[in-house]
This record gives sequence, structure tokens and C-alpha cells, in this order.
Amino acid sequence: MRFHTRKWVKPEDLNPNSTLFGGRLLAWIDEEIALYAIIQLESPRIVTKHMSEINFRASAKQGDIVEIGIDVVKFGTTSLTLMCEVRNMMTKETIITIDTITMVSVGLDGKAQAHGKTKIEYVEDRLKK
Amino acid sequence: MRFHTRKWVKPEDLNPNSTLFGGRLLAWIDEEIALYAIIQLESPRIVTKHMSEINFRASAKQGDIVEIGIDVVKFGTTSLTLMCEVRNMMTKETIITIDTITMVSVGLDGKAQAHGKTKIEYVEDRLKK
Amino acid sequence: MRFHTRKWVKPEDLNPNSTLFGGRLLAWIDEEIALYAIIQLESPRIVTKHMSEINFRASAKQGDIVEIGIDVVKFGTTSLTLMCEVRNMMTKETIITIDTITMVSVGLDGKAQAHGKTKIEYVEDRLKK
Amino acid sequence: MRFHTRKWVKPEDLNPNSTLFGGRLLAWIDEEIALYAIIQLESPRIVTKHMSEINFRASAKQGDIVEIGIDVVKFGTTSLTLMCEVRNMMTKETIITIDTITMVSVGLDGKAQAHGKTKIEYVEDRLKK
Amino acid sequence: MRFHTRKWVKPEDLNPNSTLFGGRLLAWIDEEIALYAIIQLESPRIVTKHMSEINFRASAKQGDIVEIGIDVVKFGTTSLTLMCEVRNMMTKETIITIDTITMVSVGLDGKAQAHGKTKIEYVEDRLKK
Amino acid sequence: MRFHTRKWVKPEDLNPNSTLFGGRLLAWIDEEIALYAIIQLESPRIVTKHMSEINFRASAKQGDIVEIGIDVVKFGTTSLTLMCEVRNMMTKETIITIDTITMVSVGLDGKAQAHGKTKIEYVEDRLKK
Repeated sequence: MRFHTRKWVKPEDLNPNSTLFGGRLLAWIDEEIALYAIIQLESPRIVTKHMSEINFRASAKQGDIVEIGIDVVKFGTTSLTLMCEVRNMMTKETIITIDTITMVSVGLDGKAQAHGKTKIEYVEDRLKK
Repeated sequence: MRFHTRKWVKPEDLNPNSTLFGGRLLAWIDEEIALYAIIQLESPRIVTKHMSEINFRASAKQGDIVEIGIDVVKFGTTSLTLMCEVRNMMTKETIITIDTITMVSVGLDGKAQAHGKTKIEYVEDRLKK
Repeated sequence: MRFHTRKWVKPEDLNPNSTLFGGRLLAWIDEEIALYAIIQLESPRIVTKHMSEINFRASAKQGDIVEIGIDVVKFGTTSLTLMCEVRNMMTKETIITIDTITMVSVGLDGKAQAHGKTKIEYVEDRLKK
Repeated sequence: MRFHTRKWVKPEDLNPNSTLFGGRLLAWIDEEIALYAIIQLESPRIVTKHMSEINFRASAKQGDIVEIGIDVVKFGTTSLTLMCEVRNMMTKETIITIDTITMVSVGLDGKAQAHGKTKIEYVEDRLKK
Repeated sequence: MRFHTRKWVKPEDLNPNSTLFGGRLLAWIDEEIALYAIIQLESPRIVTKHMSEINFRASAKQGDIVEIGIDVVKFGTTSLTLMCEVRNMMTKETIITIDTITMVSVGLDGKAQAHGKTKIEYVEDRLKK
Repeated sequence: MRFHTRKWVKPEDLNPNSTLFGGRLLAWIDEEIALYAIIQLESPRIVTKHMSEINFRASAKQGDIVEIGIDVVKFGTTSLTLMCEVRNMMTKETIITIDTITMVSVGLDGKAQAHGKTKIEYVEDRLKK
């Protein structure tokens, strides 16, 4: 699993109990999986269709740094299934895991459309071309 | 199911494809279930422990109004299990459903603690007392 | 008066004195009255024209839940006049009241336009149709 | 009237009809009057108690620059009454006027407390001392 | 140097160490110089091209009021060079200074374009015309 | 140079000319360098002291994905000097470069304090211990 994006937990990210607001965390994850799928499928029109159950194992507090890891589970014809793990870099704890997140490539008409990809490509490889 | 909170989809709530950003929607839901649990359990210390799978059935666009409905599935000793549905008031479509969301009441030490509640109480009833 | 939308007072909603920032509260109210008018008048083009005086009777602190109530005062030909009350669900205090808020329905040219409505309709009724 | 703070209307400030969101404007005003009162009364503990009626005369669109002007109406023993006008620097139109906004100085106990000021002082004068 | 816009440091503006988040401050400055250039050059299409080195001399804490001052260094054919100073009105400290910030006027094609201005004009003067 | 955090340019990140708001970009960079320094110096108390000149070479538009790269220039006794590059993953353009950003480790009294680090450590290495 590759961990890219990192977030610094600031006062604006807290719930009233002064721990990381779960809704903020879910928004961070949703952005990360969207852009991961956009890069892999080389298409900006990607929609989230399904997330498997979410376990909230630990939280984070102000000043902690969390990092979001994404891995590919499966390439479908029109879909891409990802998994996600969020870790707290300060405590080394896993905050959240989601086993499968299904993203679908859509055409201009909003309907599912084949994306033609079958395996992970690294941006570094593309940049070298 | 009771629908309370309504949101007006503003430019700041959109993803780059100009539909409602899924992360924003998840953040709205997380706030709504938190405050619903706080009101029912009459305790401000509530944490989200688990969400069952999430189906994204439809989206919303700028100017749409979405409303968030919550219902109680079960009262546990230390937990409260809710279900959630989000509807688009303009198109009458269901945007998202989550069958079970488990919230846990915690003490000052952060550990699960019995909340003593066994059934839904309406705020109106409490106000009458 | 019907109370719909509820807000959880989070750190990002506070002023530097650690009470609910009045400007945030006014923004919440403005969104709520706009979407209430949009739903009643079944038109997305509604502008706020006038608010009567605003009394700030109480405040709210981090973790409080506030709910926003709206009622109809009068249907005009092109306008809808509403009243608003915001309550703190924790303390049972009334935070703010505004006796009349005048919303006007406008056409694509931005000018006032008759909206054809004369009484409150409940969304539930419409959904049953 | 002195106009200080200026705001650039960005996409995040718009309502779904693509004009300046009234709630954002009210939040900008509330911040401006709070800091104006804090500077004049030389106390950080100021609360908004009352606003007279608000007329929305014009709006603003993306890219417009609005400026917020404040003037003193009256110094009371524990209060300071201000007036406010917001102008659109692009169209020269007055967007909003509020004739009286009453701010009250409070002590650590949250109760009104005499502030000892009787006239406007300019920060420049204080800096020269 | 003229100081216009003032900001009240709220909880949402803090970094996890509870001082003013530097990124927020830079965003405030960037908005202020953009709108200053737009007003002087009477064109909405202005881009930031270069900032000279930035010294962070002091910080600010929750409740402080900071004001942003801008002065003109030089009018070029297609550019406008500004300087900026941010002060803490509570502590009288200078928070940040930037000696030169180069803004360029661009045409609809995004290319630099002569702006025809050679000296500062005050908005008050224009309003009197 | 290692590129970690990625951002999806959403409507809320745009300036009124519909390109990435420079102030938002500077805020993203400031957060990224702060957390990079916190991780390397294993201390949460880090302040930004100086940034060398900033060249804005290109911009980004709605839907683009930008990634932020950081590299270490030098470890001082109390400081850490970084460099930063921001790239647009869609256009492969470099948006911004900053040659040196000086972060200083401070003690509880806010004064510079030796951090004891002399070379880059990778989090992966630490996790293996």
C-alpha cells in the first residue's frame, strides 16, 4: 500500500469533543480515492458507487499527522475497486480501514463506460515517457 | 424515519465534476448522526464505531436541497445503532442509504459506558416536562 | 413553528471568546430561510430582501446543538414573509429571534415575479402525490 | 464613514444562484463590527446584542470586491452602537445598510461592564503615543 | 502605507500549536494584493507572478486582530509591483513583510497585456467623479 | 524529491478568474512543510521563519490534481531548511518552486532549541524498528 497524502489535524478539523471529526476524515478519504482513480484511469469523470463497511478503530487529536494509503483491489471493465487505510503517524495506530471502494468511470452522459485499464501504472513511469 | 437537517448545495460543496462532493455528503451525515445520538443518549461523549456498507445511488447538483433522515435500529447497553437515508428534495431520489451506524457512549476515560436508554424520546416530550 | 435543521457547534464555529460566532449563526439562518422559501415557492430563484431587527438573547458553546425553526407569516404576490427562532437544545434557551424575513421570488431577469402560492404545503403531502 | 476591510467574492462565497450568499455577507459584517468594537473599547470581550432591520438593496457577483464601512452612532456606558454599510466597489452600489448595531462590553462573568470610553480614537493616534 | 483589511484570529485560523496558521496568513495576503491590484489597474484579470522573500517576524494568537497594509513600489507596462506588511493590532508587532510582489495584468488569452496605469488612484477620487 | 500530498482542485479552491487561488496553494504548501518538518525533527513545535522568493510559473484549473514535493536542503542546529516544488499532475507543469524554507524548532518557551537531527529519516525505517 502506498501512502501519499498527509493531513495535519488543525482546530478546524476537530469535533466538539476535541478529537478528529469523523466527517472530516471521510471527506479526506473521498478526495484521496477520487484523485487516485482519476490518475489510474486517466479520466476526470469518476464517481464513487459503493464503500464496504467502515471500522473506526482509533482517533487522532489536534497536532497529529494522519496519512492516507490506497491500494488497488481489482480493475473491472468500467470500474476500479480500491482499498483504503488511514494511519496516525504520531501514534502508529490505524484509524480506519475500508476493504473495498468501488469507483466507476462514466461518460459525458453520466453512464458507466469502459476505461480500458487493467493494471496499476505509476505516475513516475508516465513522466519518463 | 424523521428527516430533520436540510442542506442547500452551494458551489463550495461541489466536486470538480460539478456534482455534490461525496466527501461533503459523508461529513454532513456524520454530524447529523452524532447530534442525533447525543440528543437521544443525553450525553455529549459519543463516538462513531462502525458504519455498514454505503451505496451511492444518485447525486445532487448545485441548488438542490438534500435532507438527512435518521432512524433508530437498536439500543444496546453502551451503544445506539442508527440507520440513515439522504434524499434529494428536488428530484425525490434517494442519494445514499446506510443500514447500520453504531455509535458508542464513552466515559471521561474514553471507554464504553452504559447509557441507560432503551427507547427513542422526542425532544418535544422532554421540553414539556 | 417547525424546527428542522440542527447544527453541532464545532471549534470552527466559535469566535475568539469561545462562544458561537454570531456571523456563523446568521449564515446558518440565511441558508435555512432560503431553502425553506425554495421548497414552499417551488422555485430556486429566491432572494432575501429584508430582515426585521435581530435580538441576540443567548449564545451557545462548543458541543451545544442548536436548531433552527421557521414559520410562515404571510404569502404576498411575489414575496413570502417568514419568522425565525433559533434554540439551544442543550440549555433550552432561545438564542435569536427574527420576526419577519422577506424573501422575493425573481425571474430569470432578476425582477420580482408572482409565485402563485398562497399557503404552506408540506413536502410529505407532495411526496404522496 | 470609514471603509476598511475588503473582500473578493470567490466561488466559495456564492449561493446556488451564483450571486453573493447573503449568509456569507452577514458573517463578514459580524466579524468587522466585532473587531471594530474591540479596537475602540480596547477590550476583547464584546458581544453583539441587537441589530436593527437589514435591507438587502443589491447583490454582488463572482469577482466583485465589496468593502465594509462602519461608523459610531453612540457610546453608552457598557455599550457601543455602530452603523454599517457594505458597498460593491465594482458597481458602486450599496449592498446593505444596518442603521444600528449594539455591542456590549462584558466582564469575565459574562455580565455587562462599563468600558470607560466616550469617543472614537484612531489607532494611528494610539500608535504615536 | 495604507492598511485596509482587518482579520480577527478565530479558532479556525489556528495551527495545532494554537498560533495563527501561516498558510491562512499567506492566503489572506494573496487575496488582499489581488484585490488591491484589481482596483488600481481597473481590470479583474490579474495574476501573481513573483513574491520576494518572506520573513515571519512574529505570530498572532486567538482573538488578536491583524491588519494588512499594501503600498505600490512601481508601475510597469503590464505589471504592478506592491509591497506588503502585516501588523498585529494588539501587540503592535510586525508579523510579516514582503518587499516586492509582482502582479501582471493579462488579457482574455492569459497573456500579459499593457494596463495603461502609471500612478496610484484613490477610489474616493473615482467615486467623486 | 519526494511528492506526497495531492490535492484535487475543487470549486472552493478557485479565485474569481476560475483558476487555482494562489492563497489556497500557499496554505497547502505551508501545511505540507510544517508536517514534513514535524516528522523529520520528531517535535510538534516547529515554526516557519523564512521563505525565499516564490515564482508562480503556471496555474491549475478545476479538476486538476496538484502534488506537493519537499526536499531537505540542510539541517542546522535548531533549524531545518527545505525546498518545495508543486506540480500539476494533469499538465505536467511546475506550478511553483521555493528554493529555501527555513523551519525552526522551538521549546515550550517559544525560543529556538536544538533538535538533535542531522539527516533525513524515513518513516518506514522508524516503523520497522
